[in-house]
Formats: sequence, C-alpha cells, structure tokens
Amino acid sequence: MILSSKISPEAIKKLSLSEMEQLCSELRSYIIDIVYGTGGHLASSLGTVELCVALHRVFSTPEDKIIFDVGHQAYAHKIITGRYRDFCKLRTENGISGFPRPDESPHDAFIAGHASTSISAALGIAKAMEINDDFHHVISVIGDGALTGGEAYEGLNNAGKLKRNFIVILNDNEMSISKNSGAVANYLTQMTSSTKYFETKKRVKEALSKSVIGRELSKSVSGTKELVKFAIFQSNIFENLGYKYLGPINGNNLGELLDVLNVAKQFDRPCIIHIKTKKGKGYPPAEQNSGEYHGLAKHKNDTCDEHNDTYSEIAGKYIDRLADKDKRICAITAAMKYATGLQHIAKDHRERFFDVGIAEEHAVTFAGGLASQKMIPIFCVYSTFIQRCFDQIIHDLAIEREHTVLAVDRAGFVGEDGETHQGLFDVAMLSIIPNMEIFSPSNDAELRSSFYKAVYKCKGIAAVRYPKGEAVLSDRNDADYDIRYFKFDKNNKKQLMITYGRITEFAIETAKQKEIDLLQLVKIFPIVEKSVESAEKYDKIIFFEEGIMSGGIGEKFAFELMKRGWKGDYKTVAVENRFVSYSETESQLAKFKLDTNGMIEETGDFFEQT
Amino acid sequence: MILSSKISPEAIKKLSLSEMEQLCSELRSYIIDIVYGTGGHLASSLGTVELCVALHRVFSTPEDKIIFDVGHQAYAHKIITGRYRDFCKLRTENGISGFPRPDESPHDAFIAGHASTSISAALGIAKAMEINDDFHHVISVIGDGALTGGEAYEGLNNAGKLKRNFIVILNDNEMSISKNSGAVANYLTQMTSSTKYFETKKRVKEALSKSVIGRELSKSVSGTKELVKFAIFQSNIFENLGYKYLGPINGNNLGELLDVLNVAKQFDRPCIIHIKTKKGKGYPPAEQNSGEYHGLAKHKNDTCDEHNDTYSEIAGKYIDRLADKDKRICAITAAMKYATGLQHIAKDHRERFFDVGIAEEHAVTFAGGLASQKMIPIFCVYSTFIQRCFDQIIHDLAIEREHTVLAVDRAGFVGEDGETHQGLFDVAMLSIIPNMEIFSPSNDAELRSSFYKAVYKCKGIAAVRYPKGEAVLSDRNDADYDIRYFKFDKNNKKQLMITYGRITEFAIETAKQKEIDLLQLVKIFPIVEKSVESAEKYDKIIFFEEGIMSGGIGEKFAFELMKRGWKGDYKTVAVENRFVSYSETESQLAKFKLDTNGMIEETGDFFEQT
Repeated sequence: MILSSKISPEAIKKLSLSEMEQLCSELRSYIIDIVYGTGGHLASSLGTVELCVALHRVFSTPEDKIIFDVGHQAYAHKIITGRYRDFCKLRTENGISGFPRPDESPHDAFIAGHASTSISAALGIAKAMEINDDFHHVISVIGDGALTGGEAYEGLNNAGKLKRNFIVILNDNEMSISKNSGAVANYLTQMTSSTKYFETKKRVKEALSKSVIGRELSKSVSGTKELVKFAIFQSNIFENLGYKYLGPINGNNLGELLDVLNVAKQFDRPCIIHIKTKKGKGYPPAEQNSGEYHGLAKHKNDTCDEHNDTYSEIAGKYIDRLADKDKRICAITAAMKYATGLQHIAKDHRERFFDVGIAEEHAVTFAGGLASQKMIPIFCVYSTFIQRCFDQIIHDLAIEREHTVLAVDRAGFVGEDGETHQGLFDVAMLSIIPNMEIFSPSNDAELRSSFYKAVYKCKGIAAVRYPKGEAVLSDRNDADYDIRYFKFDKNNKKQLMITYGRITEFAIETAKQKEIDLLQLVKIFPIVEKSVESAEKYDKIIFFEEGIMSGGIGEKFAFELMKRGWKGDYKTVAVENRFVSYSETESQLAKFKLDTNGMIEETGDFFEQT
Repeated sequence: MILSSKISPEAIKKLSLSEMEQLCSELRSYIIDIVYGTGGHLASSLGTVELCVALHRVFSTPEDKIIFDVGHQAYAHKIITGRYRDFCKLRTENGISGFPRPDESPHDAFIAGHASTSISAALGIAKAMEINDDFHHVISVIGDGALTGGEAYEGLNNAGKLKRNFIVILNDNEMSISKNSGAVANYLTQMTSSTKYFETKKRVKEALSKSVIGRELSKSVSGTKELVKFAIFQSNIFENLGYKYLGPINGNNLGELLDVLNVAKQFDRPCIIHIKTKKGKGYPPAEQNSGEYHGLAKHKNDTCDEHNDTYSEIAGKYIDRLADKDKRICAITAAMKYATGLQHIAKDHRERFFDVGIAEEHAVTFAGGLASQKMIPIFCVYSTFIQRCFDQIIHDLAIEREHTVLAVDRAGFVGEDGETHQGLFDVAMLSIIPNMEIFSPSNDAELRSSFYKAVYKCKGIAAVRYPKGEAVLSDRNDADYDIRYFKFDKNNKKQLMITYGRITEFAIETAKQKEIDLLQLVKIFPIVEKSVESAEKYDKIIFFEEGIMSGGIGEKFAFELMKRGWKGDYKTVAVENRFVSYSETESQLAKFKLDTNGMIEETGDFFEQT
C-alpha cells in the first residue's frame, strides 16, 4: 500500500511512475469506499484521480495555487494534502467539506461550490502574485460543464492578456450534471472527433513551412500571411482568445498528464490544457451512468425501500401535466434536468423543454424572451443558484412584468453540501423585487396548488419554493388557501406562532402540544393582509423561519404589524446572519431551533416569560 | 427634408438609396440637436443611424423583432418608429425612455438597459416563434462592449444550435464606455486588421478547391479533410460556435449594410454580422472623444461654471491617495473608469488598476482572488450593476470573509436613465449578506472617512455607497462617526427623524425648521446598537430612506426596535415596492416625499396626528 496517512505532495514527488499509478488505483478504491458510506460527489472525483496526483507531482502547493472549479473534482487532492484520515468524515458535522475551503487547508487555494468561478479567482491570485514578484504557478481546473457559465468566459477573456504562466485545465468529461448542452459542447466534441488533432496540426505546420505548397498558398492570399497563420495555427476558440492550447490529452493516463503539465509549466503566457477524462473511472456503475452517480446520498442500511416522492419529482410531474393541457407552458433548467424532475416534460414535450447549461443569467433573460411572446416559462432552479440571476429577474422580468414562474428547488437547509449550497437567501432576495409573489408550500397538495396559482392567477413573477428531499403528503387533493389558521388554543392565551414551508409540520406538532394558535403562510410575499389582521389580535407572536433573518419574512411581518400600530411582543427564530456549515439537515434544523424540540423550547421561553 | 413626423418603417421601404442616405444625415442632425438639449447617449446612437435605417428597410417590425443590447444605440430606431415628435421629450418626465421599452412601443421588442442580455432575450423570442410556427425574423444588435459580458456568451452558446434564421449584429466600435478590454477585444481587432478578411477567405477557398495545392494539402494531412475545412473556413470564434459569419462590414455604409442584411435574411441558421461603426459619427467632437460623449448630461445654460466635485471624483481621488501609501490597495472597474473616478489610480498605479470590461460577476470573484493574497481590492461599480454580482459577493467573498471594499456609485435615484438604472436595491440586497458592513455618507468628509474605515477598520466586506452628482462639501476634514445626532427639539416632544445618505441635508433642514431631533446613520448596516438605544427613548419615529422599502434599513430598524420591546409609533417613508421612471432626480425625490418639502409634509402628518 502506498496510500496511507503519510501520503503528501512531497511523498508523491519521490514515487516512480508505476508507484504513482498504483497510488491512483488505491485512491480510487478509497474514495469509492468512503463516499459509498458518507455520500458525496463520486463520478467527478473518480475521473480526476490521475490529474490530482499529476498536479501534486509537478507543482508544489500551497505556494503554487490550484483552484478547482465547483470542487466536485477535488477529493483525491484533499486526501493527498493531509486529509487522509478525516476523509471518512466527509460532509459530516465537524468533519471535512465536500468542496475546497481555504479555512480547512492552505492547500485549498480558493472556495468552490458554485460553478464557473475558478478562472476569475485564479486571475485575481495571479495578478496579486505579479504585483508581489511571486513567480509561483496558478492552475485553474474547470469542467466542461462549468465552461457553459458566462463567468468562465469573462475570466478567460480577462486572463488572455496575461504575460506570465497561467494554466487552465479544461477537464472534459462530456457532461456536467445533466448532459452538457450548447455550442461550446458541440465544439469540444467536434474538436476531438479526430483523435490525433494535435499531431495533425503539427503535420499541417510542417507541410506549410517545408514545402512549396505553403509558399504557394501564402502567395495566393496576397500578402496576408498573418491570415493563413491565423486560420491554420490558431484555429480554436482558446487560441483566438490568446491561450496556448495543448490537447486533447487522455486525462486518465498519468504519463501523458505529467508530460503536458511539465511542458505547460514552462510557458510565460496563459495556456489551456484540454484533457479528456472518464467520469466515474474505475467504478463500473458510475462509469455507465455518471449522471446518477454525480452525487450519492448517504447510504442508509434500511430494509424498507418505500419513500414518498421528493418535492422535485412532484413538481416535475405536475409541470408536465400542466404542459399537457396548455401549450404555452415551457420548462427551463440550468443543467439540472433530473435533479429538478424535468425529465417528464423533456420526454413528453421536448420542444418546450430547455436545458441551457450552467447559465442561470441566460436562463432568466431567455425566459423573459419567451414570456414576451405569451409563453409561460417555468424556470426550475436551486435556491442557491437563483442568487446568480438577481439582476436578470429585476431587469428582464420584473420591470416589464414578464409573466414567469420561478420554481425554487432546494429551498432551506440542504444538509451535507454546506455553506455554498444552503437555500437560505432566496426569500430575502426575491422579496426585494417589485411585481413578485412568493409561495412556500408545506406539502404536496399545497405545492401543486401553488404552481397552479403561480401559472394562472399571478401576473408578473411568481416564485414557488420547496425543500430538498421527500415530500410531506397531504390527505387532501386541493389546497387552495394562501394562509391556514390552526386554532389549538382553548384558553384565550393570545399567543400566536407563525411559520411557512417545510417546518410547518413541526410547528403544527408544537402548537398542538402547547395548545397555542398557529398561522401558516403559503403565500409568503407580499404579506397577505388577512394574515396581519389575524395576527394583530394576539399579544405575543413568535415567527419561525427556515431562512436568513435579515430581510426575511419574519422581519417583514414585524414591519407590517408595526405599521398598523400593533404594540405586542414579537420574536423571530431564524438563521441569524451567518453561514451554515455541512451536517445533516435534521441537525441544522435542530441547531437553529426550527424542529419540534427547538420550537417547544423557544415558545416556552418566549410565551412564559413575564 | 425626408425626416418628418411621417417617417415610418413603411416610408423607408419606398425610398431610393440616395434618399435613405439623406435620411441618415437628417436623423443624425436631429439626434445631435435634441440630445444636446435633453442629454442622453450621443456617440453610440450617432454610430448606428445607418444600421437602424437599413434594418427598417430590410425587416418589418413589430412582426420582425429587433432587440437592441443596452439600447444606447436605438435613438434612430425610436425616431423612425413613431416617436419623431416625442423625441424632444427624451428622458424627461412623461416623455420617452432613453432605452427600448415594450410598454412604450410595440417596435421595441424587449427592454434593454443593462448590457449583454440581447442574445438571450432574442433566443427566447425565437424559440417562442418556433413553437408557434411564426417565421418572422429575430435580430439582436450587440455592441463589442456588451460582448465582454458573460451572459452574451451564454446566449451565443445556446443560440448556436438553432435551426432557423437568427441574426446577431455585432456593432464593433472598438470601445464600450471606457476603452474595451480583454482577449475578445484584441481578437476583434486582430480579425479586422486585414481589411479584406472576408474577400481573402473566399480566395483561400478558391485556391484550395481549384488548384493542385488544395489537393496536396488535403493529402498531406491524411484524410482529415474535415480538419482543413475547419481550420480554414471556420477560423473564427463565431463559426466555431455554430454561426455563419459575415464581415467585417462598414456599418456606416448604407449600401453595404443593405446587401449583407439581405443575404443574412436568407439563412436558415444563426449568423453573425460583424459591422464596424464610428462612434459619434457625424459630430466631430463626439467622433474625437466618444468616451466623453458617451452620455451627455442635460445641457444647462448657466453662466456659472463652478461646480463641486462629484462623489465619484472625490472617491476616485481618495482611492488614489490610499494607493499612494498602501501597496495592497487595488481598484477594479467594469468598463466605468472615468465615470467612477478611477482615472487617477489608473495613471499613478497602473499595475494595481483593473478594467475587466462589462463583467461584474468576474470582477467580484477576481477581487476575491486578490483579497485571498492579502491585497485590498476596491471594486467601483454602479448600484444598479452590483445587482449582477449578488451570488459572487456571497459565494466568493462573504463565506471566506475575503476583505474587499465595494464602492457603490450612483446609489439612489439617478434621474433620466429611469427604471433600469435606479440605484434603489443595493441596500436591501447587500444587507441580506453575512459578514457585510455598509456605509452611506452624506458629504465629502464622511465619504473619505467611510472609505478609510472600510479599508482599515472592517473585516469581511465593506460597502460604501454614494449618489450620482455633485457632492455636498463638509466644513470639517474628519468625520469619524458611525451615527450623528442632531438635537433640535427644545420641548421634549419625543419625536425622532432617522435617515441616511444624500437626503440627510433635507432632513437636517426639516428637523431644524420643525424643531425635532434627527438621527443620521452613516454606518447603516449592521444597525449600530447605539442608534437603536438612542431611538427607543422616543415615542414616535419616522424613517426616511432613498431606496426600496421592502428589505430596506427602515424595515430593519423597526425590527430592531421591536425586538427590544419598543412600543412607539413608527413610519417609514421610502420607495414603496415599485420601479421609478425617468425624470429629474429632484422630481423623483419630491415624488417620494424625500426632499425638504416632502419631509415637512410627512413629519407634519405623522407627528401631529393624534
């Protein structure tokens, strides 16, 4: 065994090629073993084992900086850089993050969780080094999926003029999470359809320089030698943008990788290394269906296999049903077809389904274009990623009231992905925007009803938000209420709980036990007047919110009460202004007093104080 | 005269070429005359007169859709499509918008104010048409400046696969607002350095197909004919992405434009027409310095030429001074060097000044990269454009507490640019984010003091926000307070006004006149505890805020008071949740009761009611 707790970048520098190959194989087994237990991003990380080993052979972190885009690819890097033992605590409370985190290790040069940021961050690091006469290397590792995001292009565009070594490794596994889409993806495929592209180019070059042919051709284009050079030698996007292009390289062949990295290291200008890797490499089930193995949930040894549908699945099926009946309904995803349940509409109404790649900004403006022609677009997007389109929602949808539905999936705590992926900001963000209505259902019937209202009752923008995971099933089919009032108080205590969304089930339990009244908001913004009218009859109100406190509905509800001159006591229990680390969703809810135990404690403290 | 109130797309279709040329010249004079009086975007609109005439000759709006990116270029289009008379009311209250607005005219296919959105919107429109078997044309007109924005690339990437006519006109005037930067700009220059590029390509094609040379060359690359074709005929970025490329064309030559548009109209796939135009064409001062003439302020016939420096200018000079003394200070702009006063640091410390082009997302992540290496980046950005980087501020700065300063210029009402450009959302947006501190100074001394604190006293992210236009000058040099308390009340009325930012001067005037106390916040978030302690001693509080009400500081201050059990009466005067149209800043302030008159009225109503 080469892989042990003693593995380190220095240790790798002393291994022979065959020992490194053995190390790759051991890393792969280790990752499979651990991730099968802890959950995590399996397929991407298996594809980049050789790359991580090669990078640590050729470069020296933390002085050289490796910036992983998204960071799904970084597990082998984590194990190599001092986290062999802790890797078994991947994505668990007080364990290690599923993404690179500078506060976890100096070998993690920059945070990564959202896609398409690595080149921009790397350029910032490189410019700082340039200013400080630091000649260490900066390497960005970006997947072909992340390359569909506009920020990656902005980064490429800005880094193209650098006059120092700067390496972008394009890890091309021919798919991001769903099948990669767009012209760039086509282009990459086309570029590598001839497997000997790189060699062939060399031969073209020889043909032109050595033979009469080249000279003849040059002459025939009347002195524009520059053009011929441009046309033949700079014939790809990246070279057009100022990068030296090396590739494609077999990214699962350690020898090839070491060669190309050693060449790239010498350049005094930016270069792109285009590597092809096999997602899921070394684990047959993941190789065959890397989409399914993109992320593994924590493996539980329960014998019962029956689960409720997830909210995503219920939403996806309902959107498909709406599309059956109404030819205006369109669905849009940014590379999350399966995760958001859109495979149904994609199958049944292919012409009205759009996977735009990891390009949330485009998705929203595109939706605006559809809406301007009287289509009804539904953009299904994770809460954490909708943060990317704040401006587009304002500018391209809200000002002209383009009627669009935002289906905000993974709203609230998401568990093991941690800080970068928590869905805690969507409510505060969306409720700033004029011409916006927001629904936060607490079960399947309310989810469907919210979608129905969003499509047919709302004008302007309507957002329907729902959490990750299994849905609570209602015993009724219809849930056509904007607010719901539970009167458990038999003693006229004048105490009220208010809440919305997933935690409603805990609030009902709490209110029942403590015999206090509960107001559930389904339409959470603009705040329904009836809900404030009901609330102001109480003396004490406690608001529970699974979201950031600053700018949340708890704050806004207080403001509405105050505007009406209400003089009671008010408290909000929510995520005080901070980020929330990885752990199980249950423990995140418990930590912020948003589960039944927490609510019982908080209501006790608040209502029983004198 | 051909230009009159009867001008229309139909009328243009009946003109001869020479009549159309005369029309162009008349349009140009008309635009210069009007814009000199009303203010507006002169240089861009002068460059595209021929394009607008040619588009309306070849296409038929509103059935065909022309989507202007940013929309600075659309004045001739507006005049042609029924707004000849109203054009003299450009950007004035109840007049016409400086940007395309579908609610103003059906000929304006989509809203445009922020850059880089036109291709995405056009693709949405085209897809809706495809679904509805509508075969009209969709044309996006995008400047080379807007092409540096990532969303433009996301749009291009997604539209490359279309199987219908789809025209992107790249209006290349070699600069956006500041000098255009980045690899794409270099590339465009390189591509057009040979003026006969297009013809030359044809000749290469002929040389290859007709002569022995082509056959020889083909043979020498062993059966990869595809490669040669690819290398020679698809030799630019756009063709790599699936577009037919036509250009470069002289975009100020009507004949050439008509030819190329008529060709492009026939394609059943996406195409790019690359036109070169002269910004400011026909108006020598604007031709020579199109940067200065990008936007003209309304021309006032005042004899007094003395003005205070603007806040932008004061900020720019102070940042330069900080950079003199501290080698960690860097400044970043997204194509707004002069407008944000960064020409000073750009001149004195070139290596620490970065103009990243219209690429706000990149700018923030890039700042994060710099900060991770202990530099202190200051990103100077308009309030309306910071909306573009909400996610990057959270993900790439806030989570790891990368110490960065956001200099938020044009915060508050901006006057004539209207809905798309109002700086009304930055406070609500930024105050959602953990590890964020926000300052909103009301004069030059507070501005400098805020910057000093942001750089040296804050950790994490610090935002300093200030309005468009001339600064209020303080009589003191130092303003080292987070809040300022004005005690004008001699009768212990227990009434308090609270405010921040530009409108502080009106609040002081009001408070003085009405003899009530006033609390000014300079550090507005997190809310300073001392300010709440001071406020809770009052019975009635009125909060004036030049910003959106939902999520604003007025709302948050109320929440803080409520948390402490305060039972007084509270009112916020702010922009109720809506967009604010173009008019003079003064009239916008008046409309929302945020000038002295409005404040006197509001305080009267509120404090004197029983």
